[in-house]
Amino acid sequence: MSGNTFGQIFKVTTYGESHGPGLGGVIDGCPAGIELSEEIIQLELDRRKPGQGIASTARKEADRVKILSGVFEGRTTGTSIGFHIENTDQRSHDYSKIMNVYRPGHADRTFDAKYGFRDYRGGGRSSGRETVSRVAGGAVAQEFLRQQSISCQAYTVRIGGIDGEVKAPEKAHELPFFSADPDVIPSWEERIKEVRSQGDTLGGVVEVCIKGVPAGLGEPVFDKLDARLAYALMSVGAVKGVEIGAGCKAADALGSENNDFMDGDGFCSNNAGGVLGGISSGQDVVVRAYVKPIPSISKPQQTVDRDGNATEIKIGGRHDICAIPRIVPVLKSMAMLTVADFILLQRRMG
Amino acid sequence: MSGNTFGQIFKVTTYGESHGPGLGGVIDGCPAGIELSEEIIQLELDRRKPGQGIASTARKEADRVKILSGVFEGRTTGTSIGFHIENTDQRSHDYSKIMNVYRPGHADRTFDAKYGFRDYRGGGRSSGRETVSRVAGGAVAQEFLRQQSISCQAYTVRIGGIDGEVKAPEKAHELPFFSADPDVIPSWEERIKEVRSQGDTLGGVVEVCIKGVPAGLGEPVFDKLDARLAYALMSVGAVKGVEIGAGCKAADALGSENNDFMDGDGFCSNNAGGVLGGISSGQDVVVRAYVKPIPSISKPQQTVDRDGNATEIKIGGRHDICAIPRIVPVLKSMAMLTVADFILLQRRMG
Amino acid sequence: MSGNTFGQIFKVTTYGESHGPGLGGVIDGCPAGIELSEEIIQLELDRRKPGQGIASTARKEADRVKILSGVFEGRTTGTSIGFHIENTDQRSHDYSKIMNVYRPGHADRTFDAKYGFRDYRGGGRSSGRETVSRVAGGAVAQEFLRQQSISCQAYTVRIGGIDGEVKAPEKAHELPFFSADPDVIPSWEERIKEVRSQGDTLGGVVEVCIKGVPAGLGEPVFDKLDARLAYALMSVGAVKGVEIGAGCKAADALGSENNDFMDGDGFCSNNAGGVLGGISSGQDVVVRAYVKPIPSISKPQQTVDRDGNATEIKIGGRHDICAIPRIVPVLKSMAMLTVADFILLQRRMG
Amino acid sequence: MSGNTFGQIFKVTTYGESHGPGLGGVIDGCPAGIELSEEIIQLELDRRKPGQGIASTARKEADRVKILSGVFEGRTTGTSIGFHIENTDQRSHDYSKIMNVYRPGHADRTFDAKYGFRDYRGGGRSSGRETVSRVAGGAVAQEFLRQQSISCQAYTVRIGGIDGEVKAPEKAHELPFFSADPDVIPSWEERIKEVRSQGDTLGGVVEVCIKGVPAGLGEPVFDKLDARLAYALMSVGAVKGVEIGAGCKAADALGSENNDFMDGDGFCSNNAGGVLGGISSGQDVVVRAYVKPIPSISKPQQTVDRDGNATEIKIGGRHDICAIPRIVPVLKSMAMLTVADFILLQRRMG
Repeated sequence: MSGNTFGQIFKVTTYGESHGPGLGGVIDGCPAGIELSEEIIQLELDRRKPGQGIASTARKEADRVKILSGVFEGRTTGTSIGFHIENTDQRSHDYSKIMNVYRPGHADRTFDAKYGFRDYRGGGRSSGRETVSRVAGGAVAQEFLRQQSISCQAYTVRIGGIDGEVKAPEKAHELPFFSADPDVIPSWEERIKEVRSQGDTLGGVVEVCIKGVPAGLGEPVFDKLDARLAYALMSVGAVKGVEIGAGCKAADALGSENNDFMDGDGFCSNNAGGVLGGISSGQDVVVRAYVKPIPSISKPQQTVDRDGNATEIKIGGRHDICAIPRIVPVLKSMAMLTVADFILLQRRMG
Repeated sequence: MSGNTFGQIFKVTTYGESHGPGLGGVIDGCPAGIELSEEIIQLELDRRKPGQGIASTARKEADRVKILSGVFEGRTTGTSIGFHIENTDQRSHDYSKIMNVYRPGHADRTFDAKYGFRDYRGGGRSSGRETVSRVAGGAVAQEFLRQQSISCQAYTVRIGGIDGEVKAPEKAHELPFFSADPDVIPSWEERIKEVRSQGDTLGGVVEVCIKGVPAGLGEPVFDKLDARLAYALMSVGAVKGVEIGAGCKAADALGSENNDFMDGDGFCSNNAGGVLGGISSGQDVVVRAYVKPIPSISKPQQTVDRDGNATEIKIGGRHDICAIPRIVPVLKSMAMLTVADFILLQRRMG
Repeated sequence: MSGNTFGQIFKVTTYGESHGPGLGGVIDGCPAGIELSEEIIQLELDRRKPGQGIASTARKEADRVKILSGVFEGRTTGTSIGFHIENTDQRSHDYSKIMNVYRPGHADRTFDAKYGFRDYRGGGRSSGRETVSRVAGGAVAQEFLRQQSISCQAYTVRIGGIDGEVKAPEKAHELPFFSADPDVIPSWEERIKEVRSQGDTLGGVVEVCIKGVPAGLGEPVFDKLDARLAYALMSVGAVKGVEIGAGCKAADALGSENNDFMDGDGFCSNNAGGVLGGISSGQDVVVRAYVKPIPSISKPQQTVDRDGNATEIKIGGRHDICAIPRIVPVLKSMAMLTVADFILLQRRMG
Repeated sequence: MSGNTFGQIFKVTTYGESHGPGLGGVIDGCPAGIELSEEIIQLELDRRKPGQGIASTARKEADRVKILSGVFEGRTTGTSIGFHIENTDQRSHDYSKIMNVYRPGHADRTFDAKYGFRDYRGGGRSSGRETVSRVAGGAVAQEFLRQQSISCQAYTVRIGGIDGEVKAPEKAHELPFFSADPDVIPSWEERIKEVRSQGDTLGGVVEVCIKGVPAGLGEPVFDKLDARLAYALMSVGAVKGVEIGAGCKAADALGSENNDFMDGDGFCSNNAGGVLGGISSGQDVVVRAYVKPIPSISKPQQTVDRDGNATEIKIGGRHDICAIPRIVPVLKSMAMLTVADFILLQRRMG
């Protein structure tokens, strides 16, 4: 019944459900004097919008952000920044089907266990729509990081078991699926079409690369930079695994293979993913998130109702086939919020 | 320059370096009335001790814990519990070799970048020895969880690329490497011997399974149970990847394969790893940590000194070949501390 | 550049300036199942509104609250509650007079020192209007406390040096100045008229009494119940002193006078103000806040401009003579938020 | 069952009871490179020791601090600083008298209500001895503040209703009672002798003045500098009231009297106590704490036992007549810890 705040210094606190009046939040701890406008935030929100590709639904979410405080004459004042995004596309729905039945892979059953009842309209607070506030927060973090010459790229490296290469990460935001590999896109599109026709869904892998992170961010014990990044990415609904640098593969390597040697020009490799002992080394910080397939499939599924009776559910309606690409800007936002927080934590050192 | 506290309600704050007077911490938020003694904590500390198997050094660390407060007549009083573990085995060393040279894969370079200087004796605060305080904290959490009928098993499932099966997790704490598979042990021993003879090191994979977690733990947005577990495990030095349930493999599965169906008896599978929408479902909570090979190898390595000059380092001394098995009780402790924290957070709901 | 969140478990995070689009906040940690509606919050907001008595300006602030999330079918869902109050009465003003001149007793100079620039329209974030979000948060806390049979009264006990008695605290919310003494009101009114005619302003003292607080709330060292209450009340703009129970007078008493003796019926007096060793005793919790006179006086004042040049300022416009009565519901809200937080903290004990 | 940590960035977490093995804590967030030694901390601890004057007991507490981590070659490393102070003067006592009887003015009854049982030996965690860890933490904060050219004076301004003047605050630490007025000391001594002979105790007032605080510290809404100071001082056991600047007297002043005018040389007065809108103005920060008489009086008192039966208690043993002067270094420490925290918070602004 808590846990709606992310960050320790640069903090974002969010609210909102998929079918209430809207979503929003409060950004607290953003330094004064950062250029900010609704247009800057809107640009990032637009990247998260559905209806942008073959993997997405045709739902139309206007997602117009309104800044409510903390900005004066185009710059942040140093006080808390309130923002709100109205829910505009709420058709009147018939929820009787899911009101008392637990959808597999969703939080219906656990919300009931936790709170005793739940807002059953489209998932309530557990809806992916919640992430719109994360992206708004991330957009503000991005402006702060820009000032620090830190930039962040996020791009898809696998969909449905088909790997893409990291060829052009800097152009990923212009390509379908936020792909860093223009050549893999046709294979992904084909796979998605195939799976859609079966009434099924797909997962994938997203990589986030943060450039310009100064050496020295992160705390040596619990609040390691990689630990906080793992927390940040795993907090996004569909993520089931997180790794840094060589990641899970490091477990199978020899020490002599996995260590990053150094010479006069710096590090000779980046298996560490830019973090040593929990502290940034000055190299690119590279993390990956493993995203499960969307649980809302149109195939019939075996489940139970609130009373524990076995039943079957067939989920209709507008649903994505793959959380990618919509999750990409969200993961990028979480990484940026994490780094912004550590920049401010570290600045205390003097 | 902070980050030495773990937890929000059940909190452990730690201190100590490998070559200072000792290590210890303060446990704050443990409920009153839990049975506790030095013996109870010592039992867990002894499991973490080196010199217990082929993968470990022969160093002898007595690691005797002393409780300094918070326990009266054998029970916790509800006030903060101080504990201390003296460093007893500190031979006089010649540190001149590593004082000004950065060991690959270690935090030497990043500590210097962060703090301007560092305690170069054996890694200082970044030493694996820091984890002794985590295990002491975990032992207290375990007593509290025992009262709640929650138990936790941790066991090794892979070393050096060789998988073991999860055959007898409940006996893992009695077997070499905390293996859950008695039959894989000879292969692991052989692999370690081989790698040791090459002056190299190995990594592996550890699984943690928490049984008896009631449905309803975890917060729906940022402080998801799995997000906090990812943070907890990734905060342990050598961990480079963390996953829950089906984990990274979920990214390649279809929705119909990955969803856990339900019937009158409960869930039919546990790909979710016991967490849906960030909230425990009542199933076993299952997480895995991917552990990199120990960076201290005796092979010569290319590196630089504090002034950036290229040089070579050859690390001698007493070093483990594999962080497993010593890391197993640490990961178990971090999982238990996380769950204890959520139990207390949730209790507020009433 | 932070500090916009109050509370540890029952948390309210606020935003908003006096002359921006509006003010609001997010309440995080309110248990599920509490009855809540906009009407319930509005009732408390209306008590804070100006234009209600001789000490207040005639400004009209509609202050209509809108709940944006966290309430479903008339009950809290356990997730975060967003709320917003639009600013409606923003006449176009000429701020040129105060834009570059520091008003004595206001935060103009310190905001410039802290942030480098400031929103000069009516005080920006430092405006008393900020407290509208506190009252909204307090209204939600009150509903939760009602469920716990805890109630809170706040009433004025002194204005302009003239003491009232605590005769009818339960009726104070119906009387001018939230007075607990119907008989003192004429003297206060006269004093205010007099001071107004001189272009000056007045301060006063407010008492808050919380009934039904169970024994056992508060933490024994830093987070004492009285320490958190002192923090809560002192965080309200005009408050310059805070005391509990016998308060400052205790410093002049003998131990035998100040100790609260006990007999079979409980405590024989309440000099402690309901808190012993930082923990509630089950008696009424009684705290008092000393409120300075409003700094906006119409008399000319000696001051400086942003460049440090001496100048004179004469503040016109709509201003209150005395922060009382408007501050009374704010102080009550802060006390209720504090107690709600401790109730949830304590519930963890089981 | 928590609340043993003070501070948000510069944090001290404490443990220990009056009659256990010892007391201590962990300081987390102290920047690297600050000169620190056991001698530096010891100097402050010695100022807190009893047996130093007419108001104190003759008990002898060695209070030798041992630094356990975080200092290397005479400077802080930036990692957590563990420290411990052994309890050496624990005579074997007969506690049967207070084991089951509630001492008036003490936390015996509330501890039992909170935790179900308590460490009855000398107050356990609620003993004033707990403050030794605060003073150790404050000593470290002082070294950090010294580097920032911030200094702090604490001195007694009233005992037993007899006011002293603030004549020589910089010499107070050399005078009995930490008096800032050499001339009032005889009157205080006489009053104490008189009260001691009656088996009674006395309270007093302590002022803390922090010099060199840069303008801009403090957060504008909840975490006002004065709000955090009120919290800090009120968290010390015997404090019942806290005020800043003109303090409680401001409630009786006119706006034109209380406002601090400004001219080319700065502020013309300091009724604000160095804080405007919660943010430091660059003036001296001046706060006062009102300290109740020590509750352990040797006169017989009416009370109850654990079963609620009326009884009488007569407290013998070694007890102080007045918490002053021992509380003076404690209040100074709390003020310094608060300011150190804000310095680090503010540094984030850049």
